[in-house]
Amino acid sequence: MQVLNQGITAPLGFLAQGVAAAIKKPDREDLAVILAARECKAEAVFTTNRVQAACVKYSKEVAARGAARAVVVNSGNANACTGLQGEVDARVMAQTAAEVLHIDAEEVIVASTGVIGVPMPMERVQAGIKEACRGLSVGGGHSAARAIMTTDTVPKEIAVQVRIDGKPVRIGAMAKGSGMIHPNMATMLGFITTDVNISNECLGQALRDSVDISYNMISVDRDTSTNDMVVVLANGLAGNSLIDNISSRSYRDFKAALDYVNVELARSIAGDGEGATRLIQVEIVNAGSQHAARQIARSITGSNLTKAAVFGQDANWGRIICAAGYAGAEFDPNLVDIYLGEVQVASNGMGVDFDEEKARQTLQQDTVCIRLDMKQGTCAATAWGCDLTHDYININASYRT
Amino acid sequence: MQVLNQGITAPLGFLAQGVAAAIKKPDREDLAVILAARECKAEAVFTTNRVQAACVKYSKEVAARGAARAVVVNSGNANACTGLQGEVDARVMAQTAAEVLHIDAEEVIVASTGVIGVPMPMERVQAGIKEACRGLSVGGGHSAARAIMTTDTVPKEIAVQVRIDGKPVRIGAMAKGSGMIHPNMATMLGFITTDVNISNECLGQALRDSVDISYNMISVDRDTSTNDMVVVLANGLAGNSLIDNISSRSYRDFKAALDYVNVELARSIAGDGEGATRLIQVEIVNAGSQHAARQIARSITGSNLTKAAVFGQDANWGRIICAAGYAGAEFDPNLVDIYLGEVQVASNGMGVDFDEEKARQTLQQDTVCIRLDMKQGTCAATAWGCDLTHDYININASYRT
Repeated sequence: MQVLNQGITAPLGFLAQGVAAAIKKPDREDLAVILAARECKAEAVFTTNRVQAACVKYSKEVAARGAARAVVVNSGNANACTGLQGEVDARVMAQTAAEVLHIDAEEVIVASTGVIGVPMPMERVQAGIKEACRGLSVGGGHSAARAIMTTDTVPKEIAVQVRIDGKPVRIGAMAKGSGMIHPNMATMLGFITTDVNISNECLGQALRDSVDISYNMISVDRDTSTNDMVVVLANGLAGNSLIDNISSRSYRDFKAALDYVNVELARSIAGDGEGATRLIQVEIVNAGSQHAARQIARSITGSNLTKAAVFGQDANWGRIICAAGYAGAEFDPNLVDIYLGEVQVASNGMGVDFDEEKARQTLQQDTVCIRLDMKQGTCAATAWGCDLTHDYININASYRT
Repeated sequence: MQVLNQGITAPLGFLAQGVAAAIKKPDREDLAVILAARECKAEAVFTTNRVQAACVKYSKEVAARGAARAVVVNSGNANACTGLQGEVDARVMAQTAAEVLHIDAEEVIVASTGVIGVPMPMERVQAGIKEACRGLSVGGGHSAARAIMTTDTVPKEIAVQVRIDGKPVRIGAMAKGSGMIHPNMATMLGFITTDVNISNECLGQALRDSVDISYNMISVDRDTSTNDMVVVLANGLAGNSLIDNISSRSYRDFKAALDYVNVELARSIAGDGEGATRLIQVEIVNAGSQHAARQIARSITGSNLTKAAVFGQDANWGRIICAAGYAGAEFDPNLVDIYLGEVQVASNGMGVDFDEEKARQTLQQDTVCIRLDMKQGTCAATAWGCDLTHDYININASYRT
């Protein structure tokens, strides 16, 4: 597998463009359009929040048809809790793009992120969509990745090329975090393009399974948003034989590349969590069940006390095992070994004498690895989070202003 | 009902004392003993965390027998994740008190709170227990309430007197917070004494039901600790006819007084959450089910984003409905009205024009009331939490030092 220095437009047949539409603030890119040069198979997963933004409702209908041609996405306004007008606005966003691009509104995925409960400034949104559509290009991927940022400090994009069935296949992707992030589709948007030739069934299965070990394993603050979605568009231009069997070698090759893309983006979302200074990676090994491994990993990345201790470079492992204990999973605490990086801090559920200075050095790394050896089975899971800092509070004490 | 300016020793026949045993730091009260002058019925509820401190294991056995005479409790060390030695230490704590007090170790409840994974300094603990036992008095309730504080900024105690069956009955109580606090018995300890004459069955039922609407409805940081317990001791000295029927008037009168005591303590724990500047009270009314009302109330008090917005006095109601949405309860978002104090900020799931200055004033109160009218039924629930502040992070970035 080869990592390309590109993003959403790396696969054959995709164009993109981000523009500044002044949706919330002037002079920053806040609206992007992605266009597939030919019809794509489309699969998507959406937020589990009972409160769903208008764009989520609209895009679910598009995704249910299994095909799409374009994506319109804006930052600065979530178009959530905006009632019937919000639903009209989401449809108009699709229609505006469709008219310029000469496609159907039913082929346009719509996504929004930003403040909840404020009507969309549709005049500026429509002008932005038209401008973005006119500017679409193969070089526009980076501007699109910038346009979907909210409190993200860096754009998140990635592209890889793999050989499947003898043909080079490309996957490109972009995503945004970085608050309201919690497993089960947090305030995050992810867009994936690929030129692989694949059936809808296989594409959907690959997406759902991949999301489960990537975006669903990150937490910034345990708040699951109203707007999340991850969408994948596949246009088949790579020319490989159709992947239509999840037991096939081709499927596994594609899935491995998709996993790589999604895990890398998920890690970068977690590490760029609001106010974060460090990425926390929690690895659970030798757990008694897959459920336990996942729940425990996620519970630790979600613990405010653990997050604050990492911020303070305090090797307070008691909070780690405590968070494991309330994860809602069965396990025997008296078997658990805990490591901070290479430093073992607990054995069989009890503290061991350890080098505090070495532990502190581990906690000063950009990526802090916490590993629990459950010694109760063969299951494993990895989750990602970030430390809880003063800047998280600063950012969220006055988000609307 | 009359509120007394006393605490745990208000009921007839209870003595208490807190002393400075230098368990973690010198010169602060950190160990308390409560003694009942005659045998009591005892009921208790304990943490749901899979990781349970040694004192929890020990006290569960005591409580299972339904009777107790004394409580030994220390702050500064949780005696959790301390292995077999921890279990021995918990038993020795009970035995040390039992020897001085001429009772059985099986009649002594043991509770601990503080840092996890550090062996108990048993020499100082035992010396402290002896000193506290020797100092027991009716005036010692306040020192006991101070001795169980950890990061609490104020002691939490209360006492009431009610007339039941023509006799004055007293309930006294003390509790501690204030981090690792989350519904389902958080890092909190609660001790309740009463001179009511009641059966074990009725006492246990009253305690469990009362805990469900008080301590189990508070959240400081969604971390559920390894050490929580709430214990009630009832010695019958008030001389009322035995309460042995939960349908009786006497039971209801007692339960109402117990609820008052527990809700007041729960509120004071939430309002004194680590670093908190404000108490957040979330009232859910007209919900479709009791489950939904409770889940939604708790989800909102647990939302970091909502908590940070309250800290910032930002009327960001979108985060409130978002937190309702991921509560795991069924409801129709399009019916929900939201109020901050008296200010309506959303109607039928959508924003309304509201006076930002008035909303900000509401958010500046010591108690911030958030009310959601679900308009979907007749069920209601109230939960309490606090804002998320820089001090929470300061406290928890270096808790062990």
